[in-house]
Amino acid sequence: MSVLIVGSTALDSIKTPKAENPRLLGGSASHAAVAASFFSPVNLVGIVGHDFPRRYLQLYSRHGIDLAGLQVVQGKTFHWSGEYEANMNNRRTLLTELGVFEHFTPTLPEAYKHAPFVLLANIAPGLQLHVLKQMRRPRFVAADTMDLWLNVALPDLLRLIKRLDAFVLNDSEAHQLTEEDNLPGALHKIHRMGPRYVIIKKGSHGSVLSGPRGLFLCPAYPLRRVVDPTGAGDSFAGAMMGYLAAANGPVERHIRRAIIYGTVVASFCCEGFGLKCTDRLTRQRIENRVAELEALTRF
Amino acid sequence: MSVLIVGSTALDSIKTPKAENPRLLGGSASHAAVAASFFSPVNLVGIVGHDFPRRYLQLYSRHGIDLAGLQVVQGKTFHWSGEYEANMNNRRTLLTELGVFEHFTPTLPEAYKHAPFVLLANIAPGLQLHVLKQMRRPRFVAADTMDLWLNVALPDLLRLIKRLDAFVLNDSEAHQLTEEDNLPGALHKIHRMGPRYVIIKKGSHGSVLSGPRGLFLCPAYPLRRVVDPTGAGDSFAGAMMGYLAAANGPVERHIRRAIIYGTVVASFCCEGFGLKCTDRLTRQRIENRVAELEALTRF
Repeated sequence: MSVLIVGSTALDSIKTPKAENPRLLGGSASHAAVAASFFSPVNLVGIVGHDFPRRYLQLYSRHGIDLAGLQVVQGKTFHWSGEYEANMNNRRTLLTELGVFEHFTPTLPEAYKHAPFVLLANIAPGLQLHVLKQMRRPRFVAADTMDLWLNVALPDLLRLIKRLDAFVLNDSEAHQLTEEDNLPGALHKIHRMGPRYVIIKKGSHGSVLSGPRGLFLCPAYPLRRVVDPTGAGDSFAGAMMGYLAAANGPVERHIRRAIIYGTVVASFCCEGFGLKCTDRLTRQRIENRVAELEALTRF
Repeated sequence: MSVLIVGSTALDSIKTPKAENPRLLGGSASHAAVAASFFSPVNLVGIVGHDFPRRYLQLYSRHGIDLAGLQVVQGKTFHWSGEYEANMNNRRTLLTELGVFEHFTPTLPEAYKHAPFVLLANIAPGLQLHVLKQMRRPRFVAADTMDLWLNVALPDLLRLIKRLDAFVLNDSEAHQLTEEDNLPGALHKIHRMGPRYVIIKKGSHGSVLSGPRGLFLCPAYPLRRVVDPTGAGDSFAGAMMGYLAAANGPVERHIRRAIIYGTVVASFCCEGFGLKCTDRLTRQRIENRVAELEALTRF
C-alpha cells in the first residue's frame, strides 16, 4: 500500500565545525518521503518555488515518489540555514526564509484522499489538520512535530493530537508538552490526549514506543561519526510509515519492526549531509544494518 | 564461586524534594555487596566506626555477606549527605565526613586473596590498586569509579585501568576521560588503556558493553517513579559480578545477561531510599523483571 506524506520541502544550508553545505535538498517531507520509498510507494504533498533545482525533482522521481501533490509556484523555495556545534547535538538556526511556504495550503489530489497510511511530517499543526480534513477514512495516521509548534500553536497541536493514531515527538518536546520529567509518566499523559501509539525519539539514546501492548525500548544504532543529524527524525518517521504501509496485517503486529527500520534509516541519514547518504541507500544495506542492530541487542 | 567486593561502607543522609532520610546504610561496597548476594557468596572488605548501627551489620549477614574483611575501628563511620533536584538527575553533595575512612587501608584476609571474581567498587584508585596487589591471580577483575578520581587521582586511575578485565564508568566520566563526545569513539580509547571489557552506564538511557565480540546495547528498565538513585551504579556492578561469579564457563558467554541482571537490580535500587528496596528483593522478583525487560526489547 502507498503512504501519503505531507510536510515541508526546502533548501537547507547546513554548517558544521567541519564543513558548510549550501542549498541541500531538505525539509521534513523530503527526508520522510525518501526514507519511506525503500518500503512502499510514496505520494508527496508540498510546495516549492521556481528556484527549486531540477536535480532535486529528479531525486524524488528516482525514488519513485509521486509528485502530483507537489505544488511548484512562482517565488522562492523555503530556505533554512542552521549551524551545529562540535558535539552535533546543539543546533542554532541562522536564517529562515519562508518564501512560497508562507502561503502554503496543502491541497490533496483526488486520488491521494483515499491513502490508507498518512504521515503528517513536521509543519504547522493547522496545516496538518487541514490535510486530515481532506482524507477519507485513512487506516493509520501519524504525525511528527517540533518545539516551535508547542510554543506558538499549542491549541492547534492539541486538536491534531486528538485525531492521530500515532504521535511522534522527541523527549524534550514530550517533557515540555506534559511537564513530566519521567518518560513513562509523559507517555501516559500523551495517550490521554488521544493517540493509541506514542513514539518518543531520544536521539542517540534510541526511542520508546508506547502502545496497546505496552512499551517497546528501541536502541539507536551506534554511529562512530555523525556528519549531519538534520532530517534524522523525519527519516525515522518516514521509514516507519513506509514499512507499515508495506506490511500485511494489523499495525500492532508490525510496529516494533517498523520502528527498528526507522532507526536504521535515520542512522544512515546522520552519516551524510542532507539526503546524501539516504539517497544512496539500498534495501539490502538497510536489511544488513537491521540484522546488525538485532545482534547488538540480543542476550 | 564467590565474589570479593571492596569499596566504601558508609552512612548516607539523602534529601529529595519529597523526603529526607538520615543515616541510611550506604557506600559503594554496601550497595554492590547486597546486589551481588542474590547470585553468589560475597566477601566484603570495608571499614566502619563504632557508631555503625548493629542493624546494618545484621542486614549484611542476612544476605550471607562474609564480614571477615570488614574492619570495625574506633571513630566515626564515613558519612555522606546529598540532595537531589526534582528531576532526580542532578545531585549535590551537602557534606562529606570521612571519619575512619580517612585512614582506610584495605587489607585482605588470607582466604580472600584467592577470590576468582573481584569487584573494586568506587573508592580512591590508589586503594583499588592496593587491593589488586594482594590478590593471587584472580580470574576476572572489574572496577567502578567516579568523576572525583578523574579530577584528583588520574595517574593512579590510569595505572588501575591498565590492570582491569572490565572497567565500569558512566557516560560523562567516559567523555571526560577520553575527550570524545561520541560513545563508540570513547569506548575505543578506553580499550586502548587496557581493559578487554568496557561498560558505560547512561542512567535512564541504559548502558553499553564493549568487548571482544563488539557492542551490546542494554536498555534501562523504565521506572514510573524514581525515589532515590543513590547506589544504582554500584548495584549494577555488584549484580553483574555476582551473576558472573555464579555462572559456569567463560565470561564472554554470560556477560550480556550479567549486564541485564545488573540493570534490573539497579532499577529496584532506585525505587526506595538507600538499600530499602534492594534489601527486600528476591531472586524470583529479579527473574520476573528480567523477563519483562526481555519482552520490552523483543522485535
